[in-house]
Amino acid sequence: MTLSINGYAAQSATTPLAPHRFERRDPRPNDVVIDIAYCGVCHSDIHQARNEWKNSIYPMVPGHEIVGRVSAVGKDVTKFKVGDTVGVGCMVDSCLDCASCNAGLEQYCEKGAVWTYNGVDRRDNMPTFGGYSERIVVSDKFVVSISDKLDLKAAAPLLCAGITTYSPLRHWKIGKGSKVAVIGLGGLGHMGLKFAKAMGADVTLFTRTPDKEAEARRLGADHVVLSTDKDQMKAVSRQFDFILDTVPSPHDLNPYLATLAVNGMLCLVGLLEPIEPAVQAGMVVSGRRSISGSAIGGIAETQEMLDFCAEHNIVSDIEMLDIQNINEAYTRMLKSDVRYRFVIDLASLKKAG
Amino acid sequence: MTLSINGYAAQSATTPLAPHRFERRDPRPNDVVIDIAYCGVCHSDIHQARNEWKNSIYPMVPGHEIVGRVSAVGKDVTKFKVGDTVGVGCMVDSCLDCASCNAGLEQYCEKGAVWTYNGVDRRDNMPTFGGYSERIVVSDKFVVSISDKLDLKAAAPLLCAGITTYSPLRHWKIGKGSKVAVIGLGGLGHMGLKFAKAMGADVTLFTRTPDKEAEARRLGADHVVLSTDKDQMKAVSRQFDFILDTVPSPHDLNPYLATLAVNGMLCLVGLLEPIEPAVQAGMVVSGRRSISGSAIGGIAETQEMLDFCAEHNIVSDIEMLDIQNINEAYTRMLKSDVRYRFVIDLASLKKAG
Ligand SMILES: [Zn+2]
Ligand SMILES: [Zn+2]
Ligand SMILES: [Zn+2]
Ligand SMILES: [Zn+2]
Repeated sequence: MTLSINGYAAQSATTPLAPHRFERRDPRPNDVVIDIAYCGVCHSDIHQARNEWKNSIYPMVPGHEIVGRVSAVGKDVTKFKVGDTVGVGCMVDSCLDCASCNAGLEQYCEKGAVWTYNGVDRRDNMPTFGGYSERIVVSDKFVVSISDKLDLKAAAPLLCAGITTYSPLRHWKIGKGSKVAVIGLGGLGHMGLKFAKAMGADVTLFTRTPDKEAEARRLGADHVVLSTDKDQMKAVSRQFDFILDTVPSPHDLNPYLATLAVNGMLCLVGLLEPIEPAVQAGMVVSGRRSISGSAIGGIAETQEMLDFCAEHNIVSDIEMLDIQNINEAYTRMLKSDVRYRFVIDLASLKKAG
Repeated sequence: MTLSINGYAAQSATTPLAPHRFERRDPRPNDVVIDIAYCGVCHSDIHQARNEWKNSIYPMVPGHEIVGRVSAVGKDVTKFKVGDTVGVGCMVDSCLDCASCNAGLEQYCEKGAVWTYNGVDRRDNMPTFGGYSERIVVSDKFVVSISDKLDLKAAAPLLCAGITTYSPLRHWKIGKGSKVAVIGLGGLGHMGLKFAKAMGADVTLFTRTPDKEAEARRLGADHVVLSTDKDQMKAVSRQFDFILDTVPSPHDLNPYLATLAVNGMLCLVGLLEPIEPAVQAGMVVSGRRSISGSAIGGIAETQEMLDFCAEHNIVSDIEMLDIQNINEAYTRMLKSDVRYRFVIDLASLKKAG
């Protein structure tokens, strides 16, 4: 017996997303069934719907910024009950037994985490389907609680954009006295500004467009530097302890490395492609600088992030979307025409097509 | 009144090194005069003698792995006395007043450290001259003590090759339980093996030539991996906490990054050129890995390193050289034909040319 689910799927790399009915597994004893209220739209949804990472499984139901309410729980579930407000991010399972999993770093599981969509379940080998759908079935270990203090629809992007920016700032101990810069003001970047500010850092935004100053300040930036302006860049040379680089396409890191203080670190969170043009090794050697990267965060840290958000009243800036408009939303996202994250209202699924 | 000094110098980028008589400053109240016994030969001596970094000042007297005995001290010097065994490394001065200098990181001085040769003195604006000479005059703050327990000629390379490899291992807290790999078995690499082993790490050498196994084990390696062998590389995937990369020319970092554990770091100590071919950002993002760099070490840490060497009986493996043979030594170094560092016996300066 399985659950029959309404959602939106890509049937191939070249077809637009369209209504799709599919099956989810009958809940296991430790599963939580979630009625999805909202789902954020992440750039990686586009990459994978279009098979740009060459590993797509079709039909594909994207979506990994999922929030909703628990509608059923398996008999072994004690942490959640029907009616709880919960979230699911990029992962729905991992081996839970390797060094990474034991360290709470399920995203770096040595056996490979099971991604929320475009993954394969460890037990039944069935593809996983994401949050562009009415309901999801997830092992309780990969479900997180969301405070009712938060605006639920605006909390959805916390599950990917939020944890992706929170985790490295926490891991590298950003706090009062830290000088942090964020490169890029999109879904990730705007969360980076909010978190860095809430953690007590002095926060700078690097941007390539001069009209973002007021917005950046509203979101938490103390300073804005136009990265295309050589004088402005020179004025911040050797300044920053930490640069959160949210740019999703290859770009020259050298001008940013020059703005790192001795022992400073630039952390990539938006890029998987080659680092081109080449980094000058002298830029890291001559100041004991580092270039690092970070992927989302573990489950315990995701819960910690959500609790931090409840405490500091942090959510994403969003634009609401009916699921019927998802293809237009993708087009706009590719032009960076969204402030700062689209969130699908899954109630729209019930509308006539 | 100045001191007239015999040494060897390059008169231009294209002339071989040859005997050269030059002046050093009359000692200032805080200066130490050192009769140079031995001077190691560093790859950067060749780069600079031949103006490969495009910043050479001629005539140039290279040499920054200097050991000898104090022959005079200025009236304000209390830390050293005539007859002391001392060393001078890559720096002879810095501003002593910036954030880096205050943190004991004179090599990253914001005003720029004064290099031992091919530098310019902060007070008299005269070029600095290095250790291929009979005597040097150095501010006491940039002189370090060398234990008489150490073989003095074999201690010379500690002043550059030694501190360059010791400092990052210490900074990133290598010790018992650490899994460390060293890339390259030259002047830097062989010191990296010795230090990592003495600090208690499990040590692997990456090499491209299969005949180095016995040598590597003698120098401290617990394991040797042939980096050109895909199976051997695969067998160490996700293994290392720290990789000390001593390779002095551009090389592909991606295969080595794949051997780093989650949170692992690859540290460049031999490269100033562009990092080519391009690093895949996914290699750092997908395991929270880092690429860093490190340059020599501060003065206090250089003293700490020398004390560590005295305690653990660590020196460089060397081949002795009369200064008359320096040009042939350069030729051999460019073929990696030295195990593992040439050291000039400055007594040879007194021989008939
Ligand atoms: Zn995402
Ligand atoms: Zn695992
Ligand atoms: Zn050197
Ligand atoms: Zn300084």
